[in-house]
Amino acid sequence: MGDMRVIKVKQSVLANNDSRAEALRNELKSNKVYLINLMSSPGAGKTTMLVKLINMLKDKLRIGVIEADMDADVDAHTVQDLTGVRTIQINTSGECHLDAKMTSEAVHAIGQDNLDLLILENIGNLVCPAEFDTGAAMNLVILSVPEGDDKPLKYPLMFRKGDAFVFTKMDTKVVFDFDVDLAKQRINKLNPHAIFFPISAKTGEGMDDLAEFILKTVQAF
Amino acid sequence: MGDMRVIKVKQSVLANNDSRAEALRNELKSNKVYLINLMSSPGAGKTTMLVKLINMLKDKLRIGVIEADMDADVDAHTVQDLTGVRTIQINTSGECHLDAKMTSEAVHAIGQDNLDLLILENIGNLVCPAEFDTGAAMNLVILSVPEGDDKPLKYPLMFRKGDAFVFTKMDTKVVFDFDVDLAKQRINKLNPHAIFFPISAKTGEGMDDLAEFILKTVQAF
Repeated sequence: MGDMRVIKVKQSVLANNDSRAEALRNELKSNKVYLINLMSSPGAGKTTMLVKLINMLKDKLRIGVIEADMDADVDAHTVQDLTGVRTIQINTSGECHLDAKMTSEAVHAIGQDNLDLLILENIGNLVCPAEFDTGAAMNLVILSVPEGDDKPLKYPLMFRKGDAFVFTKMDTKVVFDFDVDLAKQRINKLNPHAIFFPISAKTGEGMDDLAEFILKTVQAF
Repeated sequence: MGDMRVIKVKQSVLANNDSRAEALRNELKSNKVYLINLMSSPGAGKTTMLVKLINMLKDKLRIGVIEADMDADVDAHTVQDLTGVRTIQINTSGECHLDAKMTSEAVHAIGQDNLDLLILENIGNLVCPAEFDTGAAMNLVILSVPEGDDKPLKYPLMFRKGDAFVFTKMDTKVVFDFDVDLAKQRINKLNPHAIFFPISAKTGEGMDDLAEFILKTVQAF
């Protein structure tokens, strides 16, 4: 009985979330603001990639960043200091994901004026963030080389929900076994339309392709 | 109103979980089975460390392993094949953590006869697993060098709930900035009684200390 009740509440929460996400997506579309929801494990290199990417694109696109963390605000300071773009921090008070309501509040707090691209750095987690549509136009998922190429087998929902996948820390392949082709195959099995960008924010490998993809996608929006 | 209702359900779920966890802890204690709850991010090296540790201890302790994953069963096969100890797999059907009820079912499925040490490899996640007491005698938390020394700032609950902390992949410090002392300080600020084991399952560094600590703790139970 107890479990049943929890499941029902969760279903209504999710249905509610879907309609809120759709409303936010429509609002962003009408304002021509492209929202990317960036998801990964803790420590996969979201912030490092983001800083590099923004510095490559900020002369071509007007960019804003929403940093989500359960408690901390270190990432917002890092992004602000290293890129100079408009950045806000939201704290989820222990929640392991962002839902459309939280995202909508953050989008309204940062504002949609004079922005082409808004990037939401979600909580570091391969599970819960995948369950909630944030209203983003694109789910960008990072898998880092040190995590291993078996992660799509273990966290299938995240790899099903992603639109584009970035393999980070490619410069560390010297010390880790990570088979890029195998990782791609495993993701494509869950998600036939997935596209891939193997990069190293440290050496710059692959960053041009990623930046061009983001630029063209936002310009076509 | 909607949110309020979810929170109330969650609170009753958590209170319910606490009493179940306590009952399981008492049952395991009376059967002299020491349960370790192993938690970390995805890809932090739980399974690799576990295999090494079991092979160092299996002549001295009777060991069993419960592998938890949302969908896959690769880890259970790996542990079984590489150690030969009694192993079962539980799937959480998408749930991002184990609670005391799931743990209790798994403990009863694997059985408590002829076991000194039972290790539960929780879902790879730095958030949700920390919220649920499983009934374990010890929470063993892994932080891997590639994830970075800032994780205690971002996932404080996990670092508050851990009893002992293993820093894995120490051999990769050559390619990552990871300050062991800073990581310890940040964890100790949340958790003054935390103890630490920097290791590399690859080179064997630190594994003797970790194995001895586990052996003595189980023998003193």
